[in-house]
Order: sequence, then C-alpha cells, then structure tokens
Amino acid sequence: MKIAILPGDGIGPEIVEQAVHVLNALDEQFEMEIAPVGGAGYEAAGHPLPEATLKLAQDADAVLFGSVGDWKYDTLERALRPEQAILGLRKNLKLFANLRPAILYPELAGASTLKPEVVSGLDILIIRELTGDIYFGQPRGVRECPDGPFKGEREGFDTMRYAETEIRRIAHVAFQTAQKRGKRLTSVDKANVLETFQFWKDIVSDVHREYPDVALDHMYVDNAAMQLVRAPKKFDVIVTGNMFGDILSDAAAMLTGSIGMLPSASLDANNKGLYEPSHGSAPDIAGKGIANPLATILSAAMMLRYSLNKAEQADRIEAAVKAVLAQGLRTPDIYEAGTAKVGTAEMGQAVVAAL
Amino acid sequence: MKIAILPGDGIGPEIVEQAVHVLNALDEQFEMEIAPVGGAGYEAAGHPLPEATLKLAQDADAVLFGSVGDWKYDTLERALRPEQAILGLRKNLKLFANLRPAILYPELAGASTLKPEVVSGLDILIIRELTGDIYFGQPRGVRECPDGPFKGEREGFDTMRYAETEIRRIAHVAFQTAQKRGKRLTSVDKANVLETFQFWKDIVSDVHREYPDVALDHMYVDNAAMQLVRAPKKFDVIVTGNMFGDILSDAAAMLTGSIGMLPSASLDANNKGLYEPSHGSAPDIAGKGIANPLATILSAAMMLRYSLNKAEQADRIEAAVKAVLAQGLRTPDIYEAGTAKVGTAEMGQAVVAAL
Ligand SMILES: CC(C)[C@H](C(=O)O)[C@@H](O)C(=O)O
Ligand SMILES: CC(C)[C@H](C(=O)O)[C@@H](O)C(=O)O
Repeated sequence: MKIAILPGDGIGPEIVEQAVHVLNALDEQFEMEIAPVGGAGYEAAGHPLPEATLKLAQDADAVLFGSVGDWKYDTLERALRPEQAILGLRKNLKLFANLRPAILYPELAGASTLKPEVVSGLDILIIRELTGDIYFGQPRGVRECPDGPFKGEREGFDTMRYAETEIRRIAHVAFQTAQKRGKRLTSVDKANVLETFQFWKDIVSDVHREYPDVALDHMYVDNAAMQLVRAPKKFDVIVTGNMFGDILSDAAAMLTGSIGMLPSASLDANNKGLYEPSHGSAPDIAGKGIANPLATILSAAMMLRYSLNKAEQADRIEAAVKAVLAQGLRTPDIYEAGTAKVGTAEMGQAVVAAL
Repeated sequence: MKIAILPGDGIGPEIVEQAVHVLNALDEQFEMEIAPVGGAGYEAAGHPLPEATLKLAQDADAVLFGSVGDWKYDTLERALRPEQAILGLRKNLKLFANLRPAILYPELAGASTLKPEVVSGLDILIIRELTGDIYFGQPRGVRECPDGPFKGEREGFDTMRYAETEIRRIAHVAFQTAQKRGKRLTSVDKANVLETFQFWKDIVSDVHREYPDVALDHMYVDNAAMQLVRAPKKFDVIVTGNMFGDILSDAAAMLTGSIGMLPSASLDANNKGLYEPSHGSAPDIAGKGIANPLATILSAAMMLRYSLNKAEQADRIEAAVKAVLAQGLRTPDIYEAGTAKVGTAEMGQAVVAAL
C-alpha cells in the first residue's frame, strides 16, 4: 500500500516526520513517497500543487498531509498561494466528505476555555461537504455590477450551489456514520434565507427515509454556532455544507482548547482519503521543535482505519497517544503545571515507545 | 417624534409592552403606533409584512421590533413565513448597518458557559452588513444544473455579491464606531477562498486610509469563530458581511450566556433605525409572563441614542437596567441561587421604578 506524504510548510515537516516514525514502528510495511506542497511546492516547482505532487497523490492509496501557508506568500496572486494546494487536492481527488472529530481528552480538560461541566467528555463529529458549495461554484470574480442600485460600479461575486447528487452522497456518509455512533444527526442549514440550503434540507430529509434508526434534526447555522457554545455535548454528528462546515468545525475544535490534538479525514466515494491535522501551519513556531505532532499522528491513525483497512493498527496508535497523555507528557500548547513539557520529537518517540 | 412599535410573535408582545412602559416613563413625549408583523402580520393581513406595517415603519423616525416566528408557520411557503418580515424591513428601510454588542454584565458572569477569566468584562461590538451579500443576491433558486459533472440534475443556488459602495459605507460606520471605542477594528472575511471577500478586504483596507487612528486587522471567518471561543476579549469592534455576521454575532452573544440581555440596532444612512433584542421569539415560553424584557428595553435605549438623539435618556435606561440587576432581580433565563426570580412585568416595573 502506497502513502503519499505531503509535509507542506511551517510546522508541517516536523509533525509529519513524527507521524512517519509512528507508521514505521507498526508491524506493517507501507510504501511512502514524499512530495512538496503549498509554499514548498511553489519554491520547488513554481506552483503550490505541482503536477508531480498531484500525480503522486492520485496514484497513492492515501495521502498524509501536514499543513500549508506562510505569511511570506501573502503577496502572491491568489492562484499561487499555498491554500490553493489543499483546495486543488480536495477537488482533484474528489474528497467530498470531511470528517472532523472534536474530542476532549480527559487529561486535557483544563485547556478548554469552557467550563468543565460544559465540555467534559465532549465527543462530537462534524461532517463537512468539501468539494462543492461557494468554495468552487462558478461564476465568480470581480465585475461591473450588472443590475440594481449599484449598477455600473465594481462588485465582487461568488456562486453558492449544491446539486442533488452532492447533497445525497454526503447525507449518506453522515447517516451511516451516525449509525455507528450515537444515532443522532443534526443537519445544519440556512433554509430560511438560502435557496441552496432549503434544497439541502429537502434532500437530507429525503435520504433520512433510508435511515429510520437515526434521529435527524435540522438547525439553522446561526443557532448551531450558539448551541456549540451553549451545550456542545448535545450534538452527536453534525453534517453541513463546505462554507458553514469551515466555520463550525473550527469553532467546535476550539471548544476543546487543544486543537493540536485533533485529526481530520477527507474521503472520496471509495474511502480513499487525505489526512491532516485540524490546525494550521503555525509559521511562528516552525523549526523550533515545539509543535504538537499528536493531531498528525492521530490523522495517520484515521488513515489506517478509513483508507487502509487496518483498524487494529489505528486502535494501537490511538491507545499509544492516550498512554503518553496519561504519562503526563505535554508539548507547550497543552502544557499545564504538574505535567512534563516535551518537544515535537520527544513526543513522537514517546508514542513509538508506547506502541 | 414617531416610533413604530412592531411586537411580532411569541414573546415579542410581552417584552415590547415593557419597553413601551419604560419609554412612557421618560420625561419625553413620543408618538407610538403599533402594527402587526411576522406571524401576526400573516394572521391579520395575509402577509408577514403587511403593506400598512411597512408604511408605518417607513414614516416613523424609528422602529421598535419584538421578535417573529413560530413553529406553526413552518409549513407556509417561504415568502409567507414570519422571518420574511424582518428581511423585508431591512431591505425596504435600507438598514445596512447592524450593531450587535456582546457585553457581559458583571452580575451575570456566572451565566456564561466560558470560564470567568475568559469572559469577565467582555465588551465587544459586531457590526454586520445587513442588506447585501448572499441574503439578497440575485440570481437564486432551484434549477436544472447548467454545467459540470452534475449537469442536467436539480441544484439549489444563490449569489453572494458585494458592490463597492456597500462595502465602503459599512466600513465607514465600522471605523467611526471604532474611533469612539477602543480604536481597534477586525474585518472578518474569507479572502483566501471567495472573490467577494477578497474584494471586501481590498475596499476595507482602502477606507482605512481615512482612519489612521484606528488599528485594522483582517481575519478569516473560520479563525474568527475560533478566536471568539479562545480569547473573545481581544476583540474591540468586528465588521463583516451579512452571512458571516449572522453566525459570528450569535456565537458572540452566546459567549455571555445571557442572550436575553442583548439589544441590537439596524441603521440606515441617516441613523434611522430598527431596534430589536438579539434573541428570538421563544414560542415555547410565550404568554407565560417569564420572558426577559431587558434586551428589548436596552434596544429602546439604543433607539434613543442612535435615532432619536436622546443620549441622556438612553443613559438613564441603561443605568436603570444595571440598578435592577444590582438589586438582584432576575428573570428565569438569568436566575441563579441567591437572587430574586421575577416575571416579565415585574422586571419591566422594576426598571421603570429605577429610572
Ligand atoms: C486554507 C483554507 C482554504 C481551508 C478552507 O477554508 O477550507 C481551511 O480553512 C480548512 O478548513 O481546511
Ligand atoms: C430570522 C433570520 C432571517 C435572521 C437572519 O438570518 O438575519 C436572524 O437570524 C437574525 O440574525 O436576525
């Protein structure tokens, strides 16, 4: 089985290196090939998603991705900026289902800005549609305003759209995932304002008829943002569109206070996937050896479970991560008094040792 | 001076009644005229925003609005549902600037789900553009998908758009408001993905040149949702578009734990405005006399300050609200052990008494 390793920018290379050590420590052989992406892709080949990198990702059985982005690319034209790499990979690999767990590890309960009783035991899963919506909808651009009171002046515009198939397939993923968890699914929309999301709501309700064992409710996105702050544990699985999912999944991740711990999976229709930590490239701490590699290590575990059919090895990694937390090891982002502060490499070695 | 009073549905009538008592207790004479809106408008005249109601709102110097919505209208076609009233009022009255403070009253610090150190003293202001964006952009609807892999099947679609003038005028409001506060403005966009918001960012940066005394920063909406949870007190004024503002302002309001306390103002270019509580119509507690009228009373204070040029009377109302909190009076939504539980009318009377 072949894994494409795309470390990217900022802390990406350091944290991916540790995840690779962990994969190498399993009793399995994986073929791993590394390629530049993001700013690193731009440096190496003049494009954030070089052709060879895309080809490697397409040919592999799974992609392990670090993170992309650095302030130094802020002045490049949009098409050349690092983030375009991740958008291009999602679209080209048809990774329409983004799974983002927000889990609070009991050992890290203190890291949350929320009161312990509100978040202790938090375990919710956000399923974000990842290849449609206003992220990719055409037409878009800056043009002369064609109508209305501002006719003739410049305007920026984008198109939100969801076709029936796009909604159906993410709904199926969501219902099937909910079936394996608490059997409760919240579909988040803005059907009271947007045609796209009235359509979304109708289709999700229709797909629900095939999953009578799952309790479905519909919630407006503004209310969902409130309920995530008010009573996040009331959720089990949330499914929503690309734009709303971008916002809500980050808010949900931050509820835990330890975004350095949260993995994510982006899957296509055949469970091929791209796996990456939920956090960004943190250029301010890059190269210092202090970044938390656990979100990436846990992303590798998700990869084993979803794309490589090695659930047992995934369990082992997850157990090893719990073990190092129980040992009191902490990178600076999750450090509290009374625990032992370690760096990126030490944390990775500790996970390998715990395997 | 003439005030249009639009109580609406659910708890709207009860809470607006108390705000009217408070206005009547001031040493000022206001002409007030009441009209049905939302579900009440539909019952009275077959439309959530009856023509006579719109005319009254247009002719008045300010509008005091309760809340609209009730489950019993969920099955009506979209154009007849209560929420359309508020969208219609915003658009027809050109209320493009929505000001939503998120303030934590020291007496109510315990109500927040966030740790006291994270939210104590919170005082941020979200300025949401209210008449543009994907809320109103044409074209929109459900159609046969015209292109791409899903060509020929049904799709829902909407158009996000912002013309230069729309961005400039909300930016001016935001900078001028920031000048009167902490002189820090955060413009929230998604310029890394959306053309509309790259354009937004460029125009806001351009307007900034006229306000060198205000510190401007730009933040992506997903990051803003995270920072509101992580360190909300770092913000002073936030300005953003209609859709992002809908989500972020509700999240920010919920940080305080007492959304029953938060007023809002929606202003046109001449400071004529519509004033309403940030919370909804809460049909589950309507008619029980237990709703919190303070957000509506504080909305009336904002109305005096922004539209009616009676800042002193506004100050008096705000001081009276602080006084009743200091007296320990609490409606059930903000009740804690050791305080005195009161109903809607008692709370209103207490504010009148404290004036
Ligand atoms: C980098 C950016 C384009 C991306 C997104 O908006 O999807 C990021 O925020 C994410 O959530 O993975
Ligand atoms: C009722 C609804 C249309 C409205 C909106 O989305 O603007 C509400 O959520 C608000 O924020 O005032």
